[in-house]
Amino acid sequence: MNKKENIVIIGAGLCGSLLALRLAQRGYKVTIYESRPDLRITDISAGRSINLALSDRGFKALRLAGVAEKAQKICIPMYGRLIHDKKGATFSSNYSGRKEEYINSISRGHLNGILLDEAEQHENVTIHFNTKCIAVDIENTIATFKRYDTKEEVSINADIIIGTDGAGSVLRKSYYLEKKFLFSYSQNYLSHGYKELEIPANHLGKHQISKDHLHIWPRGAYMLIALPNLDGSFTVTLFLSYDEGAYNFNNLTTEEKVTAFFENEFPDALALIPSIKEAFFNNPTGALGTVKCAPWMYKKNTLLMGDAAHAIVPFYGQGMNASFEDVTVFDSILEKYEGDWELIFKEYQKVRKEDTDAIADLAIDNFYEMRDHVANPLFKQKRKLEMDLEKAFPNAYFSKYSMVTFKEDIAYREAMKKGRAQDKALLNMVANHDLEAITDLNEVLKKIQEETNEILIEDKIAGL
Amino acid sequence: MNKKENIVIIGAGLCGSLLALRLAQRGYKVTIYESRPDLRITDISAGRSINLALSDRGFKALRLAGVAEKAQKICIPMYGRLIHDKKGATFSSNYSGRKEEYINSISRGHLNGILLDEAEQHENVTIHFNTKCIAVDIENTIATFKRYDTKEEVSINADIIIGTDGAGSVLRKSYYLEKKFLFSYSQNYLSHGYKELEIPANHLGKHQISKDHLHIWPRGAYMLIALPNLDGSFTVTLFLSYDEGAYNFNNLTTEEKVTAFFENEFPDALALIPSIKEAFFNNPTGALGTVKCAPWMYKKNTLLMGDAAHAIVPFYGQGMNASFEDVTVFDSILEKYEGDWELIFKEYQKVRKEDTDAIADLAIDNFYEMRDHVANPLFKQKRKLEMDLEKAFPNAYFSKYSMVTFKEDIAYREAMKKGRAQDKALLNMVANHDLEAITDLNEVLKKIQEETNEILIEDKIAGL
Repeated sequence: MNKKENIVIIGAGLCGSLLALRLAQRGYKVTIYESRPDLRITDISAGRSINLALSDRGFKALRLAGVAEKAQKICIPMYGRLIHDKKGATFSSNYSGRKEEYINSISRGHLNGILLDEAEQHENVTIHFNTKCIAVDIENTIATFKRYDTKEEVSINADIIIGTDGAGSVLRKSYYLEKKFLFSYSQNYLSHGYKELEIPANHLGKHQISKDHLHIWPRGAYMLIALPNLDGSFTVTLFLSYDEGAYNFNNLTTEEKVTAFFENEFPDALALIPSIKEAFFNNPTGALGTVKCAPWMYKKNTLLMGDAAHAIVPFYGQGMNASFEDVTVFDSILEKYEGDWELIFKEYQKVRKEDTDAIADLAIDNFYEMRDHVANPLFKQKRKLEMDLEKAFPNAYFSKYSMVTFKEDIAYREAMKKGRAQDKALLNMVANHDLEAITDLNEVLKKIQEETNEILIEDKIAGL
Repeated sequence: MNKKENIVIIGAGLCGSLLALRLAQRGYKVTIYESRPDLRITDISAGRSINLALSDRGFKALRLAGVAEKAQKICIPMYGRLIHDKKGATFSSNYSGRKEEYINSISRGHLNGILLDEAEQHENVTIHFNTKCIAVDIENTIATFKRYDTKEEVSINADIIIGTDGAGSVLRKSYYLEKKFLFSYSQNYLSHGYKELEIPANHLGKHQISKDHLHIWPRGAYMLIALPNLDGSFTVTLFLSYDEGAYNFNNLTTEEKVTAFFENEFPDALALIPSIKEAFFNNPTGALGTVKCAPWMYKKNTLLMGDAAHAIVPFYGQGMNASFEDVTVFDSILEKYEGDWELIFKEYQKVRKEDTDAIADLAIDNFYEMRDHVANPLFKQKRKLEMDLEKAFPNAYFSKYSMVTFKEDIAYREAMKKGRAQDKALLNMVANHDLEAITDLNEVLKKIQEETNEILIEDKIAGL
């Protein structure tokens, strides 16, 4: 059943390894080149987020490739946000009113290892680690790599090259630099960077705070979050401006300043992070960037996928899910047009790009929502109402968050459009006290649906 | 009164030459380097738009530099759009209900020449033509140039380098490539390109169609426009997709196909363009790109201005006006903080960037409006109503177009926000026949204002 095309995948990260597995299942000969060492035998976590949120769109792709059960076993369900105020008081905010809907904390390395193991079981898959792509000649479909061990350079002529080489994609850079076509491209950074810290397990190896939640310490100009790990620890991430506000990455230059910052702003978290001083200065500060581009393909020979095509900020917990969904969508188009790569690539971008643009924008929206609004009374009231509606009408009401996170059959673009209109309707009705006199929740639902539809119609007439 | 800073300006186009003039007036020693020959003695129009729309924001900057009167003399007023349908019938649509408000067709080369003449009258200004910037070392504020005549390379160490080197800016490229800081950058192309053609003067040297209008032949997927020149000719621009639709740049490969396209779609224009066959194949096809970036400055030594910082598509006729307004805004900040360049650059970007982002977005909106909607009954009805309102309430009603084009004291961002809300209110009221029963125009105005305000309030509550 071996198909004739020789496919090279650049990058054996989450997207590349899942794609390789799926293409191997379809009978293609796949060769993956990865610049890093094999993460199953070497610790290479530095600089990338240690754990991630896996939700329904991601699971759909894992099911397609037959690895969902294995992934499920290493998941820690998080049912909602647990918000910590400055005094250490907490309140929770569920992700959904439907109890079967939750997101999962999962180890990036562990999941990536599972995908590599599965891919490698196919004899038509070869993986080369420590082999960095340094350039792609897109006109001739030749990728040049440097092997870190022997220092030699090798050029590989492939039928198809797919770049799943992440936000700093070398294939994408070739599109930009070779100027063979008009390449629309954007890289946009938030004013904030991030730094990872750790809350270790207690002496019994248990979690010191609720492992059933994603923890948030929202403070306006900055924010701390924590996701649980299987070993009882939490990976904590500080989001902080580079140069604005009283505290920022540029002015937190001494241990005293860092400690004072955490004592003032996150005293309860500080008590749980014994390694704060070393970790703050030893761990790198990461940038928060969004990358969009088009076209994703050049002729019928090269294609960008995953973060290489659409890197997003982490605030919707959708980065990995969006990249996995790429594989689902690509696979369905491959199924339809197998053999005609030019059509496959064009159709893939046509179907997919608007959705990845949407999740990129939603993720930026959520940065501001998590940072500024989760503790705002209007937003809390709206969120509470939405939980009640989802509980009462599990098949009829879906918040924007639920559509994005749990409704894998609604495209991101639809979730964004409908979700934004619904949020606008709700926030305005809550602000204007329009719903307070209504005691029947059926009536409330009806009114929200009417207002949402009206907003969508008005936007449509205005050409928005 | 010579100030000590030695300022290098890269690019002697419209923005660079006006900036040089203004800085010279303030006593700075300015050296301009321009890659092209001196346009006052060599014809270098190829590849760039020959004439442009000059309106109130541009004039404000020209007044500041004392050159408005000279520019006025070479202007041709255009009072509205004259829209040509497929059968050759026309209808006009004024730009404003106030008769003193109109835009002007002006020759790029002629205006640029005036600015260079004025700048050169200052002994503290030196201009080097045929000298192309090939790299900027932003860390050491050294620009390297290649002289086309002697082929020699020279490196210039300046106190301040300002890049007014257009959409393909070399200084901006240095920001991107040197990776000294997180550089947010986007280049986005429309699906359409453009090609310039010409309607010559008649045998008496007169204009063959109304010179008081900007002519538009809107056809959905493509569009032709024409702006008058002083010599009786019109510069005609065809906007057409590269690869979509029945006719596109990729498939118009023979003289027969081009002629058939124009005969079918623009028969009245074709009759006026005798050189169509040669011009179509000899003139270059230009791309329509939008560039945004941030930051515009590096430390206190380099700054991007004009198209180099924010290239926009031509559909609002604001490209030159926005770049000239840069000079107005920069000058006011220079006035305030003279001497502290780091503060000047920061403040300039803080004040200005949101406005240039807004006009970039408005210009893209207008691409779709001009292409798809100008002949749409709903839009025509709205436009007619707006003209009536501007006539009846010259001091109280301003369309989005008027705010952008004629109200130079309203920032672009405000014009966009208020203008979009007002358009949305109007389009929905027209679509819903809300205004038909109201006979008193005062009442109509009041209702529009109320609806507009409501939209702005609802957007604000929704956090938009």
